[in-house]
Amino acid sequence: MTKNVYYFGKIKTDGNKTMKKILGGKGANLAEMSNLGIPVPPGFTLSTEICDYFNKHAQHYPEDLKKEAENNLHLLEKEMDMKFGDAHKPLLLSVRSGAAISMPGMMDTILNLGLNDESVKDFAETTGNARFLWDAYRRLIQMFGNVVNQIDSELFEDVLSRVKNMRKVTLDIDLSADDLKLVVEQYKEIYKDEIGKEFPQDPHDQLWSAIDSVFKSWSNTRAKKYRELNNITGLLGTAVNVQTMVFGNMGEDCATGVAFTRDPSSGEDKFFGEFLVNAQGEDVVAGTRTPQEITKENSIRWAKNNNVSSKERIEKYPSLEELMPKVYKELFAIQKQLEDHYEDMQDLEFTIQKDTLFILQTRTGKRTASAAVKIAVDMVKEKMIDKDTALMRVEPDQLNQLLHPSFDDKEKEKAEKENRYLAKGLPASPGAAVGKVVFYAEEAVKWKERNEKTILVRTETSPEDISGMDASQGILTVRGGMTSHAAVVARGMGKCCVAGCGDINIDPKAKKFYVDDHVIKEGDFISIDGSTGEVFEGKIGTKSPEFSEEFEQLMKWADERARLHVHANADTPKDSDIAKNFGAIGIGLCRTEHMFFGENRIDFVRGMILADSPEERIYPLEELKKNQIEDFKGILKVMQGFPVTIRLLDPPLHEFLPDIKDEEEIQKLSKKFKKSAQDIKARINQLKEFNPMLGHRGCRLGITFPDIYDMQIEAIIESACSLKKKGINAKPEIMIPLVSDVNEYDFIEKRARIIASRIIDKSGIDLQYKVGTMIEIPRACLVADEIAEHAEFFSFGTNDLTQMGFGFSRDDSGKFLKQYKEIGIFARDPFQALDQKGIGALIKIAIEKGRRTNPKLVIGICGEHGGEPSSVEFCHKVGLNYVSCSPFRVPIARLAAAQAVIKNPK
Amino acid sequence: MTKNVYYFGKIKTDGNKTMKKILGGKGANLAEMSNLGIPVPPGFTLSTEICDYFNKHAQHYPEDLKKEAENNLHLLEKEMDMKFGDAHKPLLLSVRSGAAISMPGMMDTILNLGLNDESVKDFAETTGNARFLWDAYRRLIQMFGNVVNQIDSELFEDVLSRVKNMRKVTLDIDLSADDLKLVVEQYKEIYKDEIGKEFPQDPHDQLWSAIDSVFKSWSNTRAKKYRELNNITGLLGTAVNVQTMVFGNMGEDCATGVAFTRDPSSGEDKFFGEFLVNAQGEDVVAGTRTPQEITKENSIRWAKNNNVSSKERIEKYPSLEELMPKVYKELFAIQKQLEDHYEDMQDLEFTIQKDTLFILQTRTGKRTASAAVKIAVDMVKEKMIDKDTALMRVEPDQLNQLLHPSFDDKEKEKAEKENRYLAKGLPASPGAAVGKVVFYAEEAVKWKERNEKTILVRTETSPEDISGMDASQGILTVRGGMTSHAAVVARGMGKCCVAGCGDINIDPKAKKFYVDDHVIKEGDFISIDGSTGEVFEGKIGTKSPEFSEEFEQLMKWADERARLHVHANADTPKDSDIAKNFGAIGIGLCRTEHMFFGENRIDFVRGMILADSPEERIYPLEELKKNQIEDFKGILKVMQGFPVTIRLLDPPLHEFLPDIKDEEEIQKLSKKFKKSAQDIKARINQLKEFNPMLGHRGCRLGITFPDIYDMQIEAIIESACSLKKKGINAKPEIMIPLVSDVNEYDFIEKRARIIASRIIDKSGIDLQYKVGTMIEIPRACLVADEIAEHAEFFSFGTNDLTQMGFGFSRDDSGKFLKQYKEIGIFARDPFQALDQKGIGALIKIAIEKGRRTNPKLVIGICGEHGGEPSSVEFCHKVGLNYVSCSPFRVPIARLAAAQAVIKNPK
Repeated sequence: MTKNVYYFGKIKTDGNKTMKKILGGKGANLAEMSNLGIPVPPGFTLSTEICDYFNKHAQHYPEDLKKEAENNLHLLEKEMDMKFGDAHKPLLLSVRSGAAISMPGMMDTILNLGLNDESVKDFAETTGNARFLWDAYRRLIQMFGNVVNQIDSELFEDVLSRVKNMRKVTLDIDLSADDLKLVVEQYKEIYKDEIGKEFPQDPHDQLWSAIDSVFKSWSNTRAKKYRELNNITGLLGTAVNVQTMVFGNMGEDCATGVAFTRDPSSGEDKFFGEFLVNAQGEDVVAGTRTPQEITKENSIRWAKNNNVSSKERIEKYPSLEELMPKVYKELFAIQKQLEDHYEDMQDLEFTIQKDTLFILQTRTGKRTASAAVKIAVDMVKEKMIDKDTALMRVEPDQLNQLLHPSFDDKEKEKAEKENRYLAKGLPASPGAAVGKVVFYAEEAVKWKERNEKTILVRTETSPEDISGMDASQGILTVRGGMTSHAAVVARGMGKCCVAGCGDINIDPKAKKFYVDDHVIKEGDFISIDGSTGEVFEGKIGTKSPEFSEEFEQLMKWADERARLHVHANADTPKDSDIAKNFGAIGIGLCRTEHMFFGENRIDFVRGMILADSPEERIYPLEELKKNQIEDFKGILKVMQGFPVTIRLLDPPLHEFLPDIKDEEEIQKLSKKFKKSAQDIKARINQLKEFNPMLGHRGCRLGITFPDIYDMQIEAIIESACSLKKKGINAKPEIMIPLVSDVNEYDFIEKRARIIASRIIDKSGIDLQYKVGTMIEIPRACLVADEIAEHAEFFSFGTNDLTQMGFGFSRDDSGKFLKQYKEIGIFARDPFQALDQKGIGALIKIAIEKGRRTNPKLVIGICGEHGGEPSSVEFCHKVGLNYVSCSPFRVPIARLAAAQAVIKNPK
Repeated sequence: MTKNVYYFGKIKTDGNKTMKKILGGKGANLAEMSNLGIPVPPGFTLSTEICDYFNKHAQHYPEDLKKEAENNLHLLEKEMDMKFGDAHKPLLLSVRSGAAISMPGMMDTILNLGLNDESVKDFAETTGNARFLWDAYRRLIQMFGNVVNQIDSELFEDVLSRVKNMRKVTLDIDLSADDLKLVVEQYKEIYKDEIGKEFPQDPHDQLWSAIDSVFKSWSNTRAKKYRELNNITGLLGTAVNVQTMVFGNMGEDCATGVAFTRDPSSGEDKFFGEFLVNAQGEDVVAGTRTPQEITKENSIRWAKNNNVSSKERIEKYPSLEELMPKVYKELFAIQKQLEDHYEDMQDLEFTIQKDTLFILQTRTGKRTASAAVKIAVDMVKEKMIDKDTALMRVEPDQLNQLLHPSFDDKEKEKAEKENRYLAKGLPASPGAAVGKVVFYAEEAVKWKERNEKTILVRTETSPEDISGMDASQGILTVRGGMTSHAAVVARGMGKCCVAGCGDINIDPKAKKFYVDDHVIKEGDFISIDGSTGEVFEGKIGTKSPEFSEEFEQLMKWADERARLHVHANADTPKDSDIAKNFGAIGIGLCRTEHMFFGENRIDFVRGMILADSPEERIYPLEELKKNQIEDFKGILKVMQGFPVTIRLLDPPLHEFLPDIKDEEEIQKLSKKFKKSAQDIKARINQLKEFNPMLGHRGCRLGITFPDIYDMQIEAIIESACSLKKKGINAKPEIMIPLVSDVNEYDFIEKRARIIASRIIDKSGIDLQYKVGTMIEIPRACLVADEIAEHAEFFSFGTNDLTQMGFGFSRDDSGKFLKQYKEIGIFARDPFQALDQKGIGALIKIAIEKGRRTNPKLVIGICGEHGGEPSSVEFCHKVGLNYVSCSPFRVPIARLAAAQAVIKNPK
């Protein structure tokens, strides 16, 4: 006979922590704790194999199951010296689901099984604790009704509220035994009304109905969807844990609480937790009573923070250490034992029933980013874990919390209480920002000059807004997704941004925005949280990021372990400096177009565009070149010794021209470049495009207006030579964007080599430089073998590759991508996490073809995905040389790169 | 010793027609004709191997070459009984290039080599034909100066003009020997001024300089570019033909002419040609003298056409048959011999020198499409060639001429003479159209109602213009390329279209367009030629296409040979009918969106879009469904027995909404659907997209607004069932557009199957239908294995696949694609001929993956490329089941499909 039921308790324990597959996570941990001799309420687990059988056999159980379960129940009764269904001293049970992977989609818990009309009365008499037992009974009916029979919980809650109102009390605990008896009567009526049957009085019926429900819940729509969305496959089903009830609410010698083996907020190696006397677990969660600290040290600290005197503290809020020193000592020892055993910080649930301690659950404790880093590094020092384990203990994305300022928790709570919450958009670029609302980029610049902090609020942003974005504290946009212009630029700047906040309505002329009927005017303070997408009215205090010693240590270990290099996308010396400080060992993408929007430059850019002939372009190009040389020198100097990959001009020219209705600007240009206003407007019209993303941009510009690229190439090589002359090791790389065909690449590369040789020969400097290309057009992947023959490097532009590979633009796809995620067409937004199946296949083709004709080819990625952990792992697996990402994501990428090595052993 | 020089003449002939590789096309043909005993002026050919040697050895010849050439020259002198360089009776030679493939990029011809100051005088005395010899000498200096030494021809032409002015004559022939002597003197001065040396007097210097030049010209930039653009590789070089000069201009017993073995215009098996008495070949080409007909029959016909009396005819323009009956007879026999020998219609050049006939060249004759068809079919009947050869003899694209009306040649000539030519755009959709200019689609519709023919002139067209396009005779647009909306739709309609005609300037408000200063107003007649792109003012008469018996025969042979099926893209019963008549055996793409623009429908489409909830959409959708059922019934009925692939709605919704400034239309909608004008405008704004091509369209609409697709699916299945009930074999196929992921496909397919089953079950009809998808998104190719698991067919949408694969839109790429072709980045516009290397690679991946999971998968193509011959061949090679194209291209595709089989034997 196959074993289907696994006992855990003092008498014997059948399972252990390695048996998650058939006992589920919870069951395996209960068995493990029992094995360790930790006081766990005994019980037994029905294996996941039964769930599998149940689903494959029209919801029937294997023949011998009931008998096996009854045998285990008898064992339990023996261990507890109580009887399930006994009227006088009944054994009460809980039933809980528990798969190998935690699954919020499933049915969870039913407590107090075994009570009925008879036993509740008898037992109340036996124990003299009637209130407690009526409360337990009404909880049973409510949970059973809701979980097993899908009766709306509100029906029960309404009864409870009505009785409380009647008795004029606010807390459940203030209801008497008689009140609860009344509640039970009404609950039973609801049950009968809804189900058409009486609440089952046979405890075995209760038990098996509960077990059935758990097994059925494995296949409900919610659970299936959850597994689908989270790619959970290969599980047999859920296990069911049947466990003895223990109670923390049987009197003053009872308590319940949660504890962490280390401080989950700071990561300090200090036992930490909270408890409530005479309470059940859900009371701790509900927050209606103020919980007390477990350790004396924390209790003193808590009192200090809450301005409570030490006298008041010890009277009103004594710590468990002080209140129940014996139990505390036992708990302390157990938590130490568990952490040592599991080799990670644990989150425990415990109940004290009449001075006896029970551990209900242990699991890996959730923690803040800084705690995660500290705990991981400390545990290595304590020789509890090795470095690889430490590196795997921190979620790379979590580090985001550490790299940006954030709102002070207290202040944010206060703002919420004061109803200053306005709206929620997408958390487009993390951090927290406070400032006065402005609606135009120029305003942000002007206000900054008079030292006023602003938040730039726009329907959407365009390259023209760059200086305004830079001048503001943060950006809030109505339209656009996680990879909209605002989001991408803001992340690059490390600037807080909330994008796509559709709930606000901007009236830019009136300089106001509305949230429903609420008005915010220019100059009003708002606070935006780029990590959550929240927008608040008024100011909320922020706190700055600080890098701990442990953070630096972990990053060092990561670099030692990673194979991928991490570069950064940066367009200015300032950003390059930030990137270097965050550990970037190169600039993987320096976009030159942002440089074109500077106050003194945009006119020359426009002059260049308006020119009717190469001759007319000479003057504006020369002016621009002077500026570009300064730009490049700055970045190359900051990054000396490291490669700096400079992308030649990419966006379509119309992005640089003024709006056709901007008469003032057009007049200005007309004078400056001696063109009639009509000609300028004609040019603006001529350059308009139906689909700018698929338009006249990138190398297509470089080929049709070769003098623009020539100027940029000259500026790059001249600045590098001039630095080298001063002994600064400049390592420029020229990157050609938007190549789809080898002829495009060759055309520009040839010119670049000629220009570079001329300048290098003339200067007599031994400058090393590279020429390569972005791979961002699907076709480029398919002809990568040809392109690689002359290219020294490839850099995947995965933003464009995703856009063109999927055929949807990041600006326009927001509308349907949201719905796609909701109905499960896409599990993740492909602009956020690289689509490994489709776009990844293109990337693999390009790598394979590229390396075939050029084994020395250096390959990287410089799209937004370069800083996203799952994408970084993909880059590692397919053999890229480096990833390049926003400066503020460099540490994330470094950690992800290390984890990729650990997760994919050779 | 390797043989490098090949003699051809009566004494001996070393080569033959199979030796094109080393003798070039011309040399091999001259040898072949000599072998056949045809009177060819004798000479010798320097092989292409010498060219190869010359290029590989710093322009030096093999050691023995000069000796070998001299030996051949001696042989030639012997055969001709003349001496090269002799003063009294010099042998004169021509030097011509000639590679295995005809190459316009190379240097061509130098005539009269061997003349110098001395011999011209002596020879003039000997022959008593001084004028002829001075003319020959001045031609030598001019050609030699220009071809060998790159002296600008205009310098020489200026001298000739000056002397003619001085003598007050207009024709060269009116200059006397003395005049030409003067010309020669001045030519020699020009030569000396430009080169710094005297014109070479040594005939051997002349000869070798000419030979050197030809060999050098193989490597000049123009020739290299030509080979690159035309993908000519693997040739050794050019050969050089040195040949005895014969003269048609030595007196009245001399003549020169060209002849075709059959009529190149009609294809009739009648000898055809023209000649001039006492003239050189170039005089025939120059057109300053009226050439005479070769046969009497044609001469009579010519006289009739030109209103010349038979007396005048025989006096002024006698045929060669009448004038030189003996020579004519010889010529007639030779042409017959040559055609029989080469098994194809030949184009001959001949010269009669003092009553002696010489054939200078024979080559395959160019012919019109109808001639090509007739000749091919006739020759099969004559058992000269087999059917495969006949099928290969017609260029598929040539058939275009036969399928559309065209301008009457005479009338077009007249228009040109009257300076009515206005401008030239792209030949976007073939045919000829005449009509009154209108600037708005609605006008075209209105004018049609009063039976006025119009040409719709627009900056560009959009789906809203469809009915106007349909109502007009032809379409002329300022913007857009060969695959712009106007071009694609017009080709689909078989309607003449000239697109991207940038020389015209439209002022739509004033209802005028300008070409420079010239104004054309609404209502003025214009004539447009969609086969050439020309635009004329006023009317030009047209002639309609007629299908000859031979055409039908050839098409039948094609169908017997082809493996690919040919379907058509058609959206209406009318177009389907045309397609069927052209031989389509299915509709490969029925676009449903054009149906939405009908007068009675667009409002409901708009109502559907403006609806705020599925409930509000019910009414407009029901109205639309009624219409769609009629549409589908019509097409399915026409195509009964054949599959009709109906694509679900594809374009983004904003294309259907009125312009936001169209207050009138918005008011109308406001009333009809009870929405405020403000709400309607808000919706218009909301639906605006940055890159509509990459926007919310195709299946993305079908997923976010499932009721729209549901309606279309119902309409398709219901109409098919209702036809089947009447015994009409409707075979509908539902095609889901713009799929990028299997989940998108599955979502819609599942709904389609449920809806279809419900309707089929209810009707009790045994309807067979298919569900499949367009493959037009690059990513779809990479995940085709997943999609094919449930899809019954794939249809490559190569327009979008090209757009997204290359990352440029067909609407915006015109600007740079033109330049790309000019500078040789692209050999062909990838929107016209499928890019086999890149986009083709994606297609191959999709086929391989698709068939791997679904071996029964039917695969076709429905992009514009489906009717382009090289793309059809690609489709054949990669194993598609069918191609689908515009109705008017169906015969082209059928022929191309047959040729693909012949060209690619298994």
